[in-house]
Order: sequence, then structure tokens, then C-alpha cells
Amino acid sequence: MKEIFLRRSIRSYSDKEISTRDLERLAEAGLMAPSARNQDSRGLIIVNDKSILLELASMSKYASFLKEAKACILVIGINKDTIPTLHMQECDLAATTENILLEATHLGIGSCWLGTYPVKERMDYVKNTLNISDNDFVYSVIALGYPKDPNAFYEKDKIKKENICWNRVK
Amino acid sequence: MKEIFLRRSIRSYSDKEISTRDLERLAEAGLMAPSARNQDSRGLIIVNDKSILLELASMSKYASFLKEAKACILVIGINKDTIPTLHMQECDLAATTENILLEATHLGIGSCWLGTYPVKERMDYVKNTLNISDNDFVYSVIALGYPKDPNAFYEKDKIKKENICWNRVK
Repeated sequence: MKEIFLRRSIRSYSDKEISTRDLERLAEAGLMAPSARNQDSRGLIIVNDKSILLELASMSKYASFLKEAKACILVIGINKDTIPTLHMQECDLAATTENILLEATHLGIGSCWLGTYPVKERMDYVKNTLNISDNDFVYSVIALGYPKDPNAFYEKDKIKKENICWNRVK
Repeated sequence: MKEIFLRRSIRSYSDKEISTRDLERLAEAGLMAPSARNQDSRGLIIVNDKSILLELASMSKYASFLKEAKACILVIGINKDTIPTLHMQECDLAATTENILLEATHLGIGSCWLGTYPVKERMDYVKNTLNISDNDFVYSVIALGYPKDPNAFYEKDKIKKENICWNRVK
């Protein structure tokens, strides 16, 4: 599937805005990810307010390019008191994040997964910026924007074949 | 992207074998997932040996349908002593798992993520079955097979729109 092989972390963006419908589609793709026992364990916050993006750019020293991003999506762990398989919530949230990256690639939108969980300072910074409830937690922040480089999507050979084996441990 | 919206957990398989090339392609798709700082944090074991599949079917009470599966892929956390961002290894491994599920959907192959990490009994059972090093850990097991039901892939409306919000917390 070409999106899987073309996806890369893209941190430099053009001025083109991302439509509301496309941002919604990215969020929908995220919520289609599997979750353990189909538990309702994730919420998404779509941010396209410039002032919030500027604030989020200070979440870590790796996030400054958020100043240039047109939007971001925050993947939030929710419902910790009611979900049946709390110990697998992080699996759900990572799969949700990956779906958003791939759907963005499909739409020609550049994306970058800003590692957040389990780094407490980053999680707290984002949580406080968005007034997220103490009962919930920020798992990831996904920066979004059309790539500045028109050739940003290309297949990079990063597969380590030696990490694949058959029916036994090497 | 249709694969994201058509993917479902499929646990009932036809007799058709999965080709070696397709199994390799699934593993390659997995290794294309993002990893924190591009760390070399995951290994994949492709299992299509029937006797091993039968043993793995006892990894938990939810895994008995592995007896019917044509193959499975194990996603393994590796290199814990050398990777730069160990605390984000689980993010890498979940994204790897999700890529394999989506590539399987793309190839018309049914898949099911068998939750393994962090359930110690399951992790140990699989580790012992495959003689995996104590230095590594089993993150997930992905059952694979062509669906018995020819209409197994369909778009199920499972998106909870109330879990999406814009620029603020509801």
C-alpha cells in the first residue's frame, strides 16, 4: 500500500491551509484504528487555531516547527475509569496515531508524530495549554501541513531485512 | 484511504495459503512504521509452520482461532540496551503492528491483533514457544489468513463523533 511506503516525518510546510473536511477525515481515520475489546479509550482534539499552535510549539525542543504547521491533532487517552482493558489503552492510542499519519499521506498532507507520552513534562505542558482534564492524558501530538517540498513523499529504503526472520529466532 | 475504513478483526479463515512474498511484504510494511529517532527497536518473526501456530493458539483463551490461521507475525521489542529512546519503544511497536494490519487489508488478507504486551503470562508463553531471548519481549501477535466470509471487509460505522473536538476541550 503506497501510503505505508511513502510516509515520512515531514516538518516543513507550505502556506496552503488544510480544509475542515480533510481534518475531520484524519480524525475519523484515527478512530477507525483497532482498540482492545473495542473500548472507548481515545479522544481527538483537532487544533487549527494559530495561537494554540504557537503555544504548543514550546512543548519540547523538538516541536518548534509547529509554528509553521497548519494544524495538529492531539490523541488523548480517555475514560480510564470505565474502559475494560486499561492496560492496552496505549496500544489503541498508538494505532490511532499511525492511522492519522497514513491518512494524511493519502491526502498529500505532511505529518510528524511528536512523541509525548510517557514524557511527563511534555504531557503536562500540552494538557495545561488545552485545559485537558486531569482524568485524561495526552498520548501524542501530530503536526500537519502540506509539504513545502513538492517531492517530500518518496520511498526511502529503511527496511532492515535482518530484523525479519521465519519460524524461529535467528 | 479505504484500507483504514475496511479493516476489521477477522478470526475465521479459508484454506487458501498466504504466499511467501505476501508475508514478506507484510513484514516490510511493518518496518516502514515510524519509530522514535528512527531507533532500531523491533524485530518480526513470520510464522507459517503449522505446528508452531497450533502451539501459539494456547497463548490465551482468546487465541484459539490461531489453529485455523495460515500464518502469524510476532512483533518483538529488541535492542533494549542500545536504543536511544527506550521509553518510546512501545509506540514504535504498536505502529508496526497497525501497519501490518492495514497492509493485510490491502492484500485482501484477514488479520487480528492478539493483545500480548503487557500481559506477562501471554508474553512468556510466546517467548518460550519461540525461544526468544530474555533480552527481547513479545509485543503483539497478528493472526493472518484469507477470510472465510467473502464479504468480511466492509465499512462498519464505529466512529464516535463525540470523541472529536476542535481547538478546545468539550
